Amino acid sequence: MFKKIAIFGVGLIGGSFALALKQAGMVQQVVGAGRSLASLERALELGIIDAIAVSAADAVADADLVLIAAPVAQTGLILASIQPYLQPGTIVTDAGSTKGDVEAAARLALGIKIGQFVPGHPIAGRESNGPDAAIASLYVGKKVVLAPLPENVEADILRVAAAWQQCGANIHRLSSAQHDLVFASVSHLPHLLAYALVDDIANKPYAEVLFQYAASGFRDFTRIAGSSPEMWRDISLANQDALLQELDAYQAKLTQVRGLLAARDGAGLEAIYQNARQARHRWISAIEAAEKQNKEGGD
Amino acid sequence: MFKKIAIFGVGLIGGSFALALKQAGMVQQVVGAGRSLASLERALELGIIDAIAVSAADAVADADLVLIAAPVAQTGLILASIQPYLQPGTIVTDAGSTKGDVEAAARLALGIKIGQFVPGHPIAGRESNGPDAAIASLYVGKKVVLAPLPENVEADILRVAAAWQQCGANIHRLSSAQHDLVFASVSHLPHLLAYALVDDIANKPYAEVLFQYAASGFRDFTRIAGSSPEMWRDISLANQDALLQELDAYQAKLTQVRGLLAARDGAGLEAIYQNARQARHRWISAIEAAEKQNKEGGD
Repeated sequence: MFKKIAIFGVGLIGGSFALALKQAGMVQQVVGAGRSLASLERALELGIIDAIAVSAADAVADADLVLIAAPVAQTGLILASIQPYLQPGTIVTDAGSTKGDVEAAARLALGIKIGQFVPGHPIAGRESNGPDAAIASLYVGKKVVLAPLPENVEADILRVAAAWQQCGANIHRLSSAQHDLVFASVSHLPHLLAYALVDDIANKPYAEVLFQYAASGFRDFTRIAGSSPEMWRDISLANQDALLQELDAYQAKLTQVRGLLAARDGAGLEAIYQNARQARHRWISAIEAAEKQNKEGGD
Repeated sequence: MFKKIAIFGVGLIGGSFALALKQAGMVQQVVGAGRSLASLERALELGIIDAIAVSAADAVADADLVLIAAPVAQTGLILASIQPYLQPGTIVTDAGSTKGDVEAAARLALGIKIGQFVPGHPIAGRESNGPDAAIASLYVGKKVVLAPLPENVEADILRVAAAWQQCGANIHRLSSAQHDLVFASVSHLPHLLAYALVDDIANKPYAEVLFQYAASGFRDFTRIAGSSPEMWRDISLANQDALLQELDAYQAKLTQVRGLLAARDGAGLEAIYQNARQARHRWISAIEAAEKQNKEGGD
């Protein structure tokens, strides 16, 4: 049970965390903070938060837990603003999509209080946003990655894990370097590729004709290009090293495929398509088996 | 009204065409032909076809319309097999995803009878397959592109168009060169990109960890990598020129994005992401407006 939780950023991610813990009866008071007064007032109206903090000091005073769910580039500034007021009993965590840069920013901002910060990343869709998008069930069955620091004590890590578990999430642990490489590969690179394709097509002189014939496959392929450009600019820059590495590997793969196509090597192309299809099929089957097991376990 | 339609390939595409025309009461007899006797027997069982042709001659005898809905690489062989038996009153069309190669193959196979062939391409999803996937409503509200030849007479083109319209489809006309460039851009390239990404990830030594953290965005982005490798090998080779051209343009775009990322040019990245998001938003809005209009028109 938490007496007071402070949430910086009361949109989809922060708001859903608050709603889930309230529904589970795990928190007495949720205080909201953030850049947008309109969002805070709306969150209050929706019952996501119980009060709006008037200052950083006010937000974290007597809080058990602080969640930073603002765009990842703001994490350092928010941590710096609360650092002077952070009491020893307060644990801070975040919901940022990158972890290496967050860890570096946190070390700068928190100094000797760095041990109170347990970095985290809930893996949940983020295309709709704002307090109105928040729902108590957002994290049910989803993964939350914690990327603990050497300075963290195990009890604090477990307390953050427990909060997410109360939201219905499954906890995983990775180092921040592992985390950033994994998400560069399966999330950040696909976003960059989807944005690049739509931009490429949109800039052609006959773009309107092209879009006219785009169908459901194109719609799914480019769905992630509907995400927030500001957020993905920040993520791209924050995870620059890993993303460049993954992009280079992908460009090398495309060059290989181009060579097969130019040489009319049908067997070579089919082998790549087949390998991809089988790997994806194994992955989807594993997800579906896990979902089935979750359901059966819940009966 | 058609007295007899012959369908080569009684899977999703050919089977749905047959079911839709039967439901509309537009055909007296549908005869099936193809490589797989099991598929033909299943199609007969499901009422998709009324008879199985015992030979190419048998299939096209007295047919008003012949639809070739087999993998695109087989089109030339099928046309060659029916050419000797093709009567003057029979129109032939196809459902292949590429048109330039089909036109070239048809000219070789049909010779002086080329005017009887009206090339076509219904734009409908193709991930599930076989007769059991066929449904009468597959083409409702979908586009069918016709790519008529200079040798076609307008009455034949209109007769093929009318058949697809009876299935609920909207007819568009493009030259085969326009068709192939358009679909290289909005369909064939995205498939190649999705296959390449999944293959790239699947070949990494820590692929299992990567797939473990792949979420819904990755699932949608790679959905088309679940398509038939054989079919997409054929399409890639059939549309080689246009696909290479689009792949080169995309690689150039990726190199540009890589440069922005390496230079930490946040404004440059955001401009590309923003342009992509806006273009996609305009496209989706246009689709939704058209769907709404269709619905209102139907009331």
